[in-house]
Amino acid sequence: MKTLVALLLLVASIVASGHDSSEEAAYQIYPLRLKSGAGSDGATVQGITCASWRLGVEAHNIIEWTTVPAECENYVGNYMLGQQYRQDSKAVNREAYLYVRALPLPKDGRNVWVFDIDETSLSNLPYYAQNGFGAEPYNSTKFNAWVEKGEAPALPETQKLYNKLLNLGIKIVFLTGRSISQTEVTSSNLKKAGYHTWHKLILKNTTEYSGATAMVYKSAERGKLEKEGYRIVGNSGDQWSDILGTSTGRRTFKLPDPMYYLS
Amino acid sequence: MKTLVALLLLVASIVASGHDSSEEAAYQIYPLRLKSGAGSDGATVQGITCASWRLGVEAHNIIEWTTVPAECENYVGNYMLGQQYRQDSKAVNREAYLYVRALPLPKDGRNVWVFDIDETSLSNLPYYAQNGFGAEPYNSTKFNAWVEKGEAPALPETQKLYNKLLNLGIKIVFLTGRSISQTEVTSSNLKKAGYHTWHKLILKNTTEYSGATAMVYKSAERGKLEKEGYRIVGNSGDQWSDILGTSTGRRTFKLPDPMYYLS
Repeated sequence: MKTLVALLLLVASIVASGHDSSEEAAYQIYPLRLKSGAGSDGATVQGITCASWRLGVEAHNIIEWTTVPAECENYVGNYMLGQQYRQDSKAVNREAYLYVRALPLPKDGRNVWVFDIDETSLSNLPYYAQNGFGAEPYNSTKFNAWVEKGEAPALPETQKLYNKLLNLGIKIVFLTGRSISQTEVTSSNLKKAGYHTWHKLILKNTTEYSGATAMVYKSAERGKLEKEGYRIVGNSGDQWSDILGTSTGRRTFKLPDPMYYLS
Repeated sequence: MKTLVALLLLVASIVASGHDSSEEAAYQIYPLRLKSGAGSDGATVQGITCASWRLGVEAHNIIEWTTVPAECENYVGNYMLGQQYRQDSKAVNREAYLYVRALPLPKDGRNVWVFDIDETSLSNLPYYAQNGFGAEPYNSTKFNAWVEKGEAPALPETQKLYNKLLNLGIKIVFLTGRSISQTEVTSSNLKKAGYHTWHKLILKNTTEYSGATAMVYKSAERGKLEKEGYRIVGNSGDQWSDILGTSTGRRTFKLPDPMYYLS
């Protein structure tokens, strides 16, 4: 399967080259789609189907795992490259919009929406598709080399929400576990992917938050936002550590991500 | 589909009659299984697939809904009567066991596990299968008439966890939104379904908790347990209101339930 994916990625990168509007960039990941019926639907791990494993991850029952079970690599790959992942992302973002649209929001310029970046605003699927879809141990050197390219496409369904929030006058705060040393490349990647504006882009000061979990770091930064007078009307992330803790926001949205788990 | 379900229920009730061990009772709901490929997998509601709707419910993105979308009735019915619901329940309960098995638990007799009852310990699927799988508005008169029969089968995967917890010396607390007026029938139904012992069975004092949400009521009752000196090592429920709030327990487990939502 890896050879197939690598080949498709190559084709996709050729097909996608020369386009850089967000809508086109979004489609980078779809030419990679594998055929359904690749035989992974019935895959199991220790008596659990991979579909149930994924649901367990999304509902925060299965936690603190380090890699996708080897038995589920093909299942997760098919899920991520197929329609279901996009559909699931769409359902979450649509719900977020239905929620915020109905909110009576004071027009005081203090309304913010917090977005995580990786697997929430930007997709690292081109990287993970070449690295086992989370079934291989996390390799920070390789992953950071990918990040430094600044070529991650937007998650198209999140970007739709982002645009709608801007139209509603809500300020955008990106809050990411990426290091402040990655500020420039993150900023340019966001713009290249179609996120043309934001109120704040908060990256992790790895000295200040040395050893802190994502949940602790993000809770502290959201707390600062609230102290500055902002009203966090919504908070979107692909990890439970993005949306648990304190100052979580008026409502939270968990985007799908069966590829990795961050505490 | 309702006619088909009613017919299958009739057949199933005949097949199952005369058995009342918990294992047999558990199987009451499986003879009802519809064939897969009944055409509901691709069903959508307002552009969202029913599969994505269900995931949104389980991950607490889609909240405060009153009924299953009409477009998803068949999808939810197939899910509940098929293998995936049982597989999903198994994954959650297995994870709970892997967690608790590895815990260093003081042998002081103060360890408790809190179980919700409906759709967690007992299944009302025989009722919901005849009432639209949650697509029809909740009818308290009809539902309470079903409860009064005291014939709800066990959720077999939860019952396996229950038995393992007892073997580990953990005390069982059932905490339910059922009214204290339903104490007798609930107690006898639990026993009939194979839950032969428990430390506490807490039902809702509808005077004391008049107007309180399930989350407020359950948080308060779990707080009382902690004040009495119990250590809540785990907490299982099919509703997010079972496991959110305060005194939630050392770890929580969300069982699948796409049929209804309780605040």
